[in-house]
Amino acid sequence: MHVAVDQPRYLNATLPISQRVADLLGRMTLEEKAAQMICVWNEKVTKLLADDGRFCPDRAREHFGHGHGLGQVGRPGDAHGGAPPAEFAELTNEIQRYFIENSRLGIPVAFHDECLHGLVARDATSFPQPIGLASSFHPELVRRVYEVTAREARACGVHQALAPVVDVARDPRWGRVEETFGEDPYLVAELGVAAVRGFQGDREVGAHDRVIGTLKHFAAHGQPESGNNCAPVSISERHLRETFLYPFERCVREGGAMSVMASYNEIDGVPSHANTWLLRRVLREEWAFDGTVVSDYYAIRELWNRPDLYGHHVAANRDEAAALAVTAGVNIELPEPDCYADLADFVRRGVIAEAAIDELVGQLLAHKFELGLFEDPYVDPAAAESLVGCEEHAGVALEAARQTITLLKNDGVLPLQPGKHPTVAVIGPNAHRTMLGGYSGKPKSFVTVLDGVRQAFGADCEVLYAEGCQITIGGGWFEDEVVPSDPETDRRLIAEAVEAAKRADIVILAVGGNEQTSREAWMSNHLGDRTDLDMVGRQNELVDALHATGKPIVSLLFNGRPLAVANLAEKSAALLECWYLGQASGTAVADVLTGKQNPCGKLPITIPRSVGHLPAFYNHRPSARRGYLFDDTTPLFPFGYGLSYTDFELSDPRLDSACIAVGESTQLRVTVTNTGPYAGAQVVQLYIRDMVSTVTRPVRELKGFARVDLASGESREVVLPITPDSLAFWNIDKLFVVEPGEFELMVGFDSQASQSLRLTVSE
Amino acid sequence: MHVAVDQPRYLNATLPISQRVADLLGRMTLEEKAAQMICVWNEKVTKLLADDGRFCPDRAREHFGHGHGLGQVGRPGDAHGGAPPAEFAELTNEIQRYFIENSRLGIPVAFHDECLHGLVARDATSFPQPIGLASSFHPELVRRVYEVTAREARACGVHQALAPVVDVARDPRWGRVEETFGEDPYLVAELGVAAVRGFQGDREVGAHDRVIGTLKHFAAHGQPESGNNCAPVSISERHLRETFLYPFERCVREGGAMSVMASYNEIDGVPSHANTWLLRRVLREEWAFDGTVVSDYYAIRELWNRPDLYGHHVAANRDEAAALAVTAGVNIELPEPDCYADLADFVRRGVIAEAAIDELVGQLLAHKFELGLFEDPYVDPAAAESLVGCEEHAGVALEAARQTITLLKNDGVLPLQPGKHPTVAVIGPNAHRTMLGGYSGKPKSFVTVLDGVRQAFGADCEVLYAEGCQITIGGGWFEDEVVPSDPETDRRLIAEAVEAAKRADIVILAVGGNEQTSREAWMSNHLGDRTDLDMVGRQNELVDALHATGKPIVSLLFNGRPLAVANLAEKSAALLECWYLGQASGTAVADVLTGKQNPCGKLPITIPRSVGHLPAFYNHRPSARRGYLFDDTTPLFPFGYGLSYTDFELSDPRLDSACIAVGESTQLRVTVTNTGPYAGAQVVQLYIRDMVSTVTRPVRELKGFARVDLASGESREVVLPITPDSLAFWNIDKLFVVEPGEFELMVGFDSQASQSLRLTVSE
Repeated sequence: MHVAVDQPRYLNATLPISQRVADLLGRMTLEEKAAQMICVWNEKVTKLLADDGRFCPDRAREHFGHGHGLGQVGRPGDAHGGAPPAEFAELTNEIQRYFIENSRLGIPVAFHDECLHGLVARDATSFPQPIGLASSFHPELVRRVYEVTAREARACGVHQALAPVVDVARDPRWGRVEETFGEDPYLVAELGVAAVRGFQGDREVGAHDRVIGTLKHFAAHGQPESGNNCAPVSISERHLRETFLYPFERCVREGGAMSVMASYNEIDGVPSHANTWLLRRVLREEWAFDGTVVSDYYAIRELWNRPDLYGHHVAANRDEAAALAVTAGVNIELPEPDCYADLADFVRRGVIAEAAIDELVGQLLAHKFELGLFEDPYVDPAAAESLVGCEEHAGVALEAARQTITLLKNDGVLPLQPGKHPTVAVIGPNAHRTMLGGYSGKPKSFVTVLDGVRQAFGADCEVLYAEGCQITIGGGWFEDEVVPSDPETDRRLIAEAVEAAKRADIVILAVGGNEQTSREAWMSNHLGDRTDLDMVGRQNELVDALHATGKPIVSLLFNGRPLAVANLAEKSAALLECWYLGQASGTAVADVLTGKQNPCGKLPITIPRSVGHLPAFYNHRPSARRGYLFDDTTPLFPFGYGLSYTDFELSDPRLDSACIAVGESTQLRVTVTNTGPYAGAQVVQLYIRDMVSTVTRPVRELKGFARVDLASGESREVVLPITPDSLAFWNIDKLFVVEPGEFELMVGFDSQASQSLRLTVSE
Repeated sequence: MHVAVDQPRYLNATLPISQRVADLLGRMTLEEKAAQMICVWNEKVTKLLADDGRFCPDRAREHFGHGHGLGQVGRPGDAHGGAPPAEFAELTNEIQRYFIENSRLGIPVAFHDECLHGLVARDATSFPQPIGLASSFHPELVRRVYEVTAREARACGVHQALAPVVDVARDPRWGRVEETFGEDPYLVAELGVAAVRGFQGDREVGAHDRVIGTLKHFAAHGQPESGNNCAPVSISERHLRETFLYPFERCVREGGAMSVMASYNEIDGVPSHANTWLLRRVLREEWAFDGTVVSDYYAIRELWNRPDLYGHHVAANRDEAAALAVTAGVNIELPEPDCYADLADFVRRGVIAEAAIDELVGQLLAHKFELGLFEDPYVDPAAAESLVGCEEHAGVALEAARQTITLLKNDGVLPLQPGKHPTVAVIGPNAHRTMLGGYSGKPKSFVTVLDGVRQAFGADCEVLYAEGCQITIGGGWFEDEVVPSDPETDRRLIAEAVEAAKRADIVILAVGGNEQTSREAWMSNHLGDRTDLDMVGRQNELVDALHATGKPIVSLLFNGRPLAVANLAEKSAALLECWYLGQASGTAVADVLTGKQNPCGKLPITIPRSVGHLPAFYNHRPSARRGYLFDDTTPLFPFGYGLSYTDFELSDPRLDSACIAVGESTQLRVTVTNTGPYAGAQVVQLYIRDMVSTVTRPVRELKGFARVDLASGESREVVLPITPDSLAFWNIDKLFVVEPGEFELMVGFDSQASQSLRLTVSE
């Protein structure tokens, strides 16, 4: 960029960002400032686009001819139905050029987009859903996944990813469980930090392959009342902090997350977009967060009312809603100008001070400087086309899918022996369809289970296929109406499946849910929360009918939430939880079935026996599970659980020091040995219990884990650090401290780990 | 009592109680003080009784020969298996005499007993369970019920009732729902205050027919995690106050409750027996409570650990547990000396100050003075015999049972027309058994449904009977093991029932639960919490089989918790919720079936569609019920719902003033008319919504109700006060205030009341 001698200081890239912000703010009119706090949603709003979805300068002039600029543009990845990467990049370039050239101070816009498990755009690499990624217990893999996502997003001109979701998922009825890393605060934090680092790297100023990570949904979105999306959360401050805030705090302090999205829900009667305590006192003051808080879509308006949905009714109109959000520190309203549309007027009427606006706009501008947008606002369409969805990225997607698959039961049928099954029947509503879960793009290719099995086995054996039954009829994630499967059709499909099974030597059965039975409920007529956890439709009838053939069944679950699958588990010779595996689904499945990949996933969330057991999280208080009449309080499959084709043993757990002082750290060492016949990976998990404390503490909490790859017969010593953070909690005085006393350390391969050591912490 | 001239001041009944307490405390040794803080459980512990259950002076001397005295004796009503009233009275007299004559200062003991729905003793009058009493929406009736209970208890020598339960029941999985007045804080408060007044009257010093009322369980016992009894409650302070503390506060401030029992559960990690904030700051400082806090049975020990159950682990041993409870202000340990056994030694070791003991003992002694025990410690066995279970009391029991029954559906079959049904089949596992619910005595008689129907119809028609099926096999409330019904037996019983139905013109079907399927889970091997809300066993198969006969079915539900009975409701011509009706069950049912009593009960708790809908309370926030896929968020039957044989209309609702200032009151007037053919009672209900407020407010909350009896064609104006208390809430600053603005007032006959008025409150 050519720089004039009388260049304004804010354009001088050698100056510290804070000085550039101050200089620019000093030059901006109130209207220019307010413009930075609003956003235009490309997907829906044609303020910038022609009817064919391409950039339309006339429309832009009509709406932005005032030259005040614009803060953000949302969801360009979906513009005109998902353009290929080069077009996507050209579109963001054109919009960017318009605002740089047609606003008084030439402030660039920032583009945000969804990046839940890959960029939501055509041809972008599609990874497993976060609940699947979490099963890897593999922060380094998660970092790579979001590094690839950032690279693809930035190549297209996207600057801010509306991810990662670091909600702790505590109610499987909720349709957004698939978007989370599961039920455990520590695991969510570890993977959340990794995801933020993947997006943001080291926050090198002007880096071309990084985007802003946005932590969401702040806070406590994962335990909605009655399992209804966005429902209130009544939770005590101590539990809020230890369960729901913990991952956010780690991602801010340790991950350096640049942005946070406030949540739709209320906590203790206070909607998050109006929660000054949460967004200022905790986030900015306690955690020293200096980034931006973005609104969830339309959530500021919901402080008042939405005619088509509901309102929190803590504001009487748009103005009051805007004032609450500004006061709480929400920097920008997404996705459309609504409550923030008249902020300038609002300041002029004296309802809020200009200084408050300056603070919020300054933080937004700081990010634009940090991203290098003033120096380097455009992207290279050709580079986007060659990078997005490239082979290298596809390799990461396959690796992630392989690491996701979690073996829950195996009577010895797996891995499949070559030549043992001349005829294989691939059956089920999830056996041969594209399934990516919510917030997905359109990857270049998708390998179904049937595809994957045919590729892996087709040369050696006959592969039959039957749909088995339907889960719902047609429709996708976006469609409001969900049509239940038809009994007649299902009966026919089940009969066909039974015929296929009878002809086969083994059944590979793909069941579970789909993108309609578990999804974000964003309107009262677009739902995805459920009142039971059984498999939808006649899938259990299919299971029973196949079981009656006597053929061994290898079951694959694809679903967004834990399902109560006692019947399926009992009737299957092997059971694998796959969640959603992304574009490489079938390949990864086939690799696991054949033993090319030894499964190593671990459940990041408890699979409960029924909906009546909720909440069923493992890290409960001692008094929480007295027992049920005619039922069991134990889970169907516990948190952290997952089998392997090989066997592992833990031996000789020991502490570097069995007695430490408050504030000191130590390490637990344990030797893990692969005693079975295959190479494989295992996740050694450390759970800690404080034996006596000023407030009750969970019976166990995950506080460390280590993933090890071992050849058959190989041993390795694993070292698990025990730091003050591993032992501390919010005590009776609501201080985060380590209390002296005894701690029990439990080490093993799941949350029922039983090898136990004592650690004494002295004053 | 003869009074010497040099009588100590504490024996001078003309002095104020505070002076008597001070004088007595000044004379007491540390051991004598500590002795007041412990209790002996007569039912289980033989420290006072011989093996035949009678008082044994030798054993008393063995344990209490030290002459330090004793604070309380628990559960004398169950001594030697439930003695008749005269023996009960003699027993308490003998024990009382021992302590008065064999302790240095002659301090009387106090006897406590369970009085959940009548005294738990032989021959005592047995009323409907509280969940049934609550259905009456009839505070005056509730007051009379507990007045009778107090009279019977006191006649036997009992001084403290471990009732009323003013827990708000928010989870129907919980086995103790039957012990509560339901889900609504206002209704619970109104009935709780009435119950306290029934027990305590006006607290006239030395009254002979009153007992101490004990509010339990303080606090938030009614929303245990996962529905498991005693499980933790994670709740924000604002919701804790508005939902769970509200009835306690009303019962303390308005009812003058003398005692409170701390709850087993923890709130925000703090077990109630160690909760200084709850028991001191809120209860004693904010509410000016000057009574006693009693421990729940063994709960102080649970602050540490119980080998057979669990511990909260906030104490490392008995001493620490005792120190926590003393610090929090628990006056006495029930039911046996355990953590408090060595309190004197504990003071001597300096762990706690003697002043702390003095305060707690002083409050206990004040009650003994207030009850007149120093002047009049004994009761008259003959009077007890004639009073307990007398005819007058039986009349109150019948009246209460009649007012409890709640009509949920009626296609016109009820009231039964004389002569229309020559043959009546009474069918079902609850048709002909004694069913009283938990914490019941042994009333002189019990009228089963079959008995009642035979008495009412027997002269005019043939009455057939069939058991139909079993719910569980044998066993009672106390038995740990619950044996599921036997499929073979049930099949036979269902076949017999179908034969009976075929022979009859109408079926009266009594189903639901029993004292084993919903009960207090007090140990991990004594359970009563459930993971679903379906009727246990093959009751639905029975319903289906009877329905197939085509005979009209009048269904009666007897159960301790709301059951998900969509199938039963659909297949019944009429459905009545009876809960547990006490000794007069069958008579009251027959009175309602024949129309002698027009049903007027109202549901005090939502009946949800399924366990997957929980929580399902009606007074939720606006954002709480977005919707479910394949299901409905509405209840099966809403809170406040109940039909009548006649029809009612509400007309002309109006406010004395539609615009008031903060702090002012007004009244809503509405005319209710009985437009149907029968006399009947109706409950006019007032629900209020704050339209805009600093924190979110429920979509509606019950804030007033009025029960009116009207002859056919009669009209009456009902006046419902609207006070600051009706409009106030815990605002954003956690102050209990009325905020100016608009309020919606909804008036009707259940929680879906739709006649609406606006009230404006100005600053």
